Amino acid sequence: MNTNDEVTLQTIEEAARTLSGHAIRTPVETCETLDLLAGRRLFFKCENFQKSGAFKFRGAFNAVSRLVRSSEPTQRELHVVGDSSGNYACGLALAAQHCGVSAHVVMPNNAPECKKQIVLSYGATLIQRERRQDFPQTIKQVQDLTGAVYISGSQNPDVISGQGTMGLELLQQVPDLDAVIMPVGGGGMLAGVSMAIKSICPDVRVYGAEPEVANQATLSLQNAERFVYSYVPRSIADGVVAGIGPVTWTYIRDNVDDIFTVTEDEIKNAMRLVSERMKLVVEPSGVVGVAAALSDSFKARAGGCKNVAVILSGGNVDLQKLPELLQM
Amino acid sequence: MNTNDEVTLQTIEEAARTLSGHAIRTPVETCETLDLLAGRRLFFKCENFQKSGAFKFRGAFNAVSRLVRSSEPTQRELHVVGDSSGNYACGLALAAQHCGVSAHVVMPNNAPECKKQIVLSYGATLIQRERRQDFPQTIKQVQDLTGAVYISGSQNPDVISGQGTMGLELLQQVPDLDAVIMPVGGGGMLAGVSMAIKSICPDVRVYGAEPEVANQATLSLQNAERFVYSYVPRSIADGVVAGIGPVTWTYIRDNVDDIFTVTEDEIKNAMRLVSERMKLVVEPSGVVGVAAALSDSFKARAGGCKNVAVILSGGNVDLQKLPELLQM
Repeated sequence: MNTNDEVTLQTIEEAARTLSGHAIRTPVETCETLDLLAGRRLFFKCENFQKSGAFKFRGAFNAVSRLVRSSEPTQRELHVVGDSSGNYACGLALAAQHCGVSAHVVMPNNAPECKKQIVLSYGATLIQRERRQDFPQTIKQVQDLTGAVYISGSQNPDVISGQGTMGLELLQQVPDLDAVIMPVGGGGMLAGVSMAIKSICPDVRVYGAEPEVANQATLSLQNAERFVYSYVPRSIADGVVAGIGPVTWTYIRDNVDDIFTVTEDEIKNAMRLVSERMKLVVEPSGVVGVAAALSDSFKARAGGCKNVAVILSGGNVDLQKLPELLQM
Repeated sequence: MNTNDEVTLQTIEEAARTLSGHAIRTPVETCETLDLLAGRRLFFKCENFQKSGAFKFRGAFNAVSRLVRSSEPTQRELHVVGDSSGNYACGLALAAQHCGVSAHVVMPNNAPECKKQIVLSYGATLIQRERRQDFPQTIKQVQDLTGAVYISGSQNPDVISGQGTMGLELLQQVPDLDAVIMPVGGGGMLAGVSMAIKSICPDVRVYGAEPEVANQATLSLQNAERFVYSYVPRSIADGVVAGIGPVTWTYIRDNVDDIFTVTEDEIKNAMRLVSERMKLVVEPSGVVGVAAALSDSFKARAGGCKNVAVILSGGNVDLQKLPELLQM
């Protein structure tokens, strides 16, 4: 596979050209109530409006379309395989459908039902496993069976470059941007967006946000060494419990200014505010950056930032579970 | 009160100038999935993003600010009073707050909790009554006590002109518009928007949509005589159960092409689609136009319309009740 070995401003700009006309250039919304609560102006990048319901489509489409372009024209039947807590599975399934490629995705049994349904609606093969430890073997089996190319949802450089396109858009969409904050799990978004932003405007601060119960990025940055729990933490924010991977780690270490942690109740409160005040359907993982931007620690540590972009990373939530998810 | 006696293109254009910088020029969103289901291109006017969470702010702000402009500067303490199933109460409360006027709103006991909370958060006085028959007497009592000016949420010409500004915006926002469809209850939106549209582009069709169980606009148009049930119909779409009033009736009779009715299940299905696919928080009343645009009768009776604007009229829904509301 003709993949780029690294992520640079150039690979992100290439990704932007690849995505043009395929991914949605998502709008940036504002909300006076949330500005008041945050004590600054917030600019919400609505990736819940992105195709497949989350930003993951960007990286998946960039990687799959590069794969297709680099394949022999005679090689008719292309297969891709990926593992995901849910949203990357949706993005990969749709990207593969757009590119005429067969997709296989491995997901945990307990992923939100809506994410499973979205994957199936895009015609992908869904394989569910109870234990994440079994994912690598399952991927190997799919590869043996179909010859599928594995595309990691956060560690593949083309995926990271695809996510970086959000950084390019934010610099165009938000006037006098001081900082950007976004959820961090595997780190694909944070690595890509921070590379884009720091390459063009090194003074704009780039922040990650993660659940307190899954504070792996925080510990990694604090100790200047990548840290991942030996177990999979449980958080309402099901999409950001994975730790940073080895590829994203180097970019995050070099380009990210700080990581903020938020409690489960802060995530629920942010979800309630975004639903009630902004009238947007968002998933718990999608508002982790909002929760951080409203937190006391953000007020203390990001004092000088007047204009802060917040990425609402996805909107795939089981509506039937909403009352339960919002329960404090 | 220096109110206009009638609604014309000129009063609507005046309202647009009054609203400029105060009301949100709401965006128009699209959705490929819904286009496929409808068999045509749909353009969703997102009044769920409007201040106070629904289009009602437009009319309320236009009426209240005209009232303030026409009052003696010495007349310090202005009061307004209105009755509403909920959204107009929210809009009037916020408009009054913006204009430095005291608002009193009369609402049914069983209105959604979130609408009551919004009214209170804007500092208005909320008076709840179980029976709608008791509203007029309650309004009279408020007027006796405070000297409040009554502003009807659908029959006041300034309110109707304010709602008409959505029509002006749609003609600018949607290319090659063939038709507009929107919910109809008291008829303020339908009267105002149809006046705006037909005055500028008489060939664009203007449609109303209402719950089958509250088909008062349908019966009125069919019999060329205003008809209102003697009881208040019960529908999941709590905002559109009132019948057309005497003022709106003449405009609707003259300018509206057709009314479509939808079942309760069609409303729920539309709400599910808009939430899941468009990631928008909408209330049941807000998607009555969507339900109609997806219906078989719309396919049969609005055949030639390629580009159809659909007004998502509001987004004030109790999130805790969402699963119940979506239950088929």
